[in-house]
Amino acid sequence: MINKLTEKIKKTNAPVVVGLDPMLSYIPDHIKTAAFEKCGETTAGAAEAVWQYNKAIIDAVYDLIPAVKPQIAMYEQFGLEGMAAFQKTVDYCHEKDLVVIGDVKRGDIGSTSAAYASGHLGKVQVGSKLCSGFGEDFATVNPYLGTDGIQPFIDVCKEEKKGIFVLVKTSNPSSGEFQDRLVDNRPLYEIVGEKVAEWGSSCMGDSYSYVGAVVGATYPEQGKILRKLMPKAFILVPGYGAQGGKGADLVHFFNPDGLGAIVNSSRGIIAAWKQEKYQAKGIAPENFADASRLAVEDMIEDIASAL
Amino acid sequence: MINKLTEKIKKTNAPVVVGLDPMLSYIPDHIKTAAFEKCGETTAGAAEAVWQYNKAIIDAVYDLIPAVKPQIAMYEQFGLEGMAAFQKTVDYCHEKDLVVIGDVKRGDIGSTSAAYASGHLGKVQVGSKLCSGFGEDFATVNPYLGTDGIQPFIDVCKEEKKGIFVLVKTSNPSSGEFQDRLVDNRPLYEIVGEKVAEWGSSCMGDSYSYVGAVVGATYPEQGKILRKLMPKAFILVPGYGAQGGKGADLVHFFNPDGLGAIVNSSRGIIAAWKQEKYQAKGIAPENFADASRLAVEDMIEDIASAL
Repeated sequence: MINKLTEKIKKTNAPVVVGLDPMLSYIPDHIKTAAFEKCGETTAGAAEAVWQYNKAIIDAVYDLIPAVKPQIAMYEQFGLEGMAAFQKTVDYCHEKDLVVIGDVKRGDIGSTSAAYASGHLGKVQVGSKLCSGFGEDFATVNPYLGTDGIQPFIDVCKEEKKGIFVLVKTSNPSSGEFQDRLVDNRPLYEIVGEKVAEWGSSCMGDSYSYVGAVVGATYPEQGKILRKLMPKAFILVPGYGAQGGKGADLVHFFNPDGLGAIVNSSRGIIAAWKQEKYQAKGIAPENFADASRLAVEDMIEDIASAL
Repeated sequence: MINKLTEKIKKTNAPVVVGLDPMLSYIPDHIKTAAFEKCGETTAGAAEAVWQYNKAIIDAVYDLIPAVKPQIAMYEQFGLEGMAAFQKTVDYCHEKDLVVIGDVKRGDIGSTSAAYASGHLGKVQVGSKLCSGFGEDFATVNPYLGTDGIQPFIDVCKEEKKGIFVLVKTSNPSSGEFQDRLVDNRPLYEIVGEKVAEWGSSCMGDSYSYVGAVVGATYPEQGKILRKLMPKAFILVPGYGAQGGKGADLVHFFNPDGLGAIVNSSRGIIAAWKQEKYQAKGIAPENFADASRLAVEDMIEDIASAL
C-alpha cells in the first residue's frame, strides 16, 4: 500500500491528503435539513448528513488527490450510526480508488492491539471464514505502550501489505508536554522517531517503509530533524491550514526525491465554502463541494511552490 | 460517577472489575454454533456469539461486583456488527446497575478528543436535540498528546459527572520502552502521574477525583510510588491474573482507607471455564458462566486476604 500511495502521489503530483473530519457545523444547512427530514434530529440524521456531505466532497476532489484521511472520532461521536457513516465513507473512497488512512490513533497491549489491527487493516477469523472489519489501508497508531503495542499492527501490515503512521510529534499546542521532555538530553519524540525507523526496517516497500510517522506541520524544525532520523518513513503531516502550518513550513518534511511526506488538510478543504476567499469567487452553500475542489487546487499549488 | 463507583465498591466489598474482552477462542462451542446458525460465519455471527456470551456472564456475576470494563478493540475487530455488540453490552450492564468503564484508550488533539469524549461519555448536539453516543460511565484515555488532548474529556466529565482513567504505567512487558525513560532523572510515568494529579484536582468527587490512572498490577513497585504521587486518583489496575499480577502485588495500589484502586481481570474471569481448576469442580462448557462466578469469588478473596 505504501507503493500505491507513492505511485498515486507521483501521478497526481499532489502530496496531499484530504481530512474527512466532518463537524456538523461545517455542513451546509440544506444537507442537514434534508438529512433531519429523512432520519430525524437523531444520530441517524447526523450520520446521514455526514455521509451526504462526504460523498459530495469526494466526488468533487477524488481525481486530484491520492488519499483521504477520515478522522474516526468525528463519526464515533454519533455512536453506532456514526460508525456506519465511517464505513460507508471508507467503502466509497475505495470505489474511487483513493488510499484511505484511518485516523484512529489506536494502541494497546499486544492481544488488544492485534484486535484493533485486524479490525482496521486486516481480517478476522470467524469459524471457517475470514471476515473484514472496517478495511482502511493505513491506520494511525499511538506509541505510548511501546513495541508490543505496535508489533501486532506491523504483523498485519506485512500480511495485508498495509501501513501505519505512528504518532511521533503531534501538531497540537501541548504536544510538547510529554513529547518534548528530554531523555538522555534528547526530546522523547526523537527516541520515538528512532523506534519508528527501527520498526519500519523490517517491512519495506520499494522506497519507503510500511511504518510511517505523524509529525505536525506546526513544528517544522522538529520535522527537519525527524526527517533525517527516519529517512525511509513516510511522514503524515497534520496541522496545515486551519491549525497554522504553511507550505513554506513543509520543505524539510520531504526527502530530496520530492517524496516522503503527505500533508493533510481537513477544515481548510471540507469547510472551504465558509471562507470569504471562496465566497468571493461566487461559491454558494449549495456549491460547497466546488469550494473544496478550489481549495485542494490552491493547496497543491502552495505546496508545489514551496518545494 | 466516581462516588457511585466508590459506594458500589464499599457495598460489594469488592474492588474488582470484570473485563469483558471476549475473544472468540474463549467462547464455548455451543454458543458459537448457535450464533453461526442464526447469523452465519460472519461478523454478525461473531457479534451475536460475543453478545450471548457476555450476557450470560453478566447475569452470573453482576451482584458480586461494582463495575465491568469492556475492551472496545475486541468488538471493533468485528467492524460495525462488533460495535453493535459493544453497545448492547454497555446498555445491558447499565440495566444491571453496573458501572461501565469503556476501555477505549482514545486520545487526540483538542477538537477531536472532544468528539471522542462526547461519543463515549457525553452528548452531542444534533439540530435542536441532544443525543447520546455509546454512553459509558468512564473511559480510558492516552496521554501522549498532552493536556489539550485530555482537557476535553475533563470538560465532559464535569458536565456529565463521569470519569476517565489516564494511561500512566501500562501492564505490558514493553511499557517501559517510553514510559520508563528518565526525564530530569525521573521516569516519564511519574511525570504523567503528576499531571494526572494536577488534572484531577479541578474535578473532585467526595473523596476521589473524576480523573484516575491506569497502572499495571505487573509493576507493583511503580504502583507504590504512583499511589503517593496521585493520592486522590483512583487507580485502575490491569494485569491481574492471566498477565501475572497477584493479590499480594496489589497492596500498595490502595490507600489506607482501603479504597483508591480497582483491579481488573478479564481472561481469568470470563474464560475461567477453560481452567483445570474450575473443570475439576465439575464445570462443563455449558456452565461457563458458573465458572466466571466462582472465579470472581476467588479473586475477591485473594485481594481481600492481601489487603
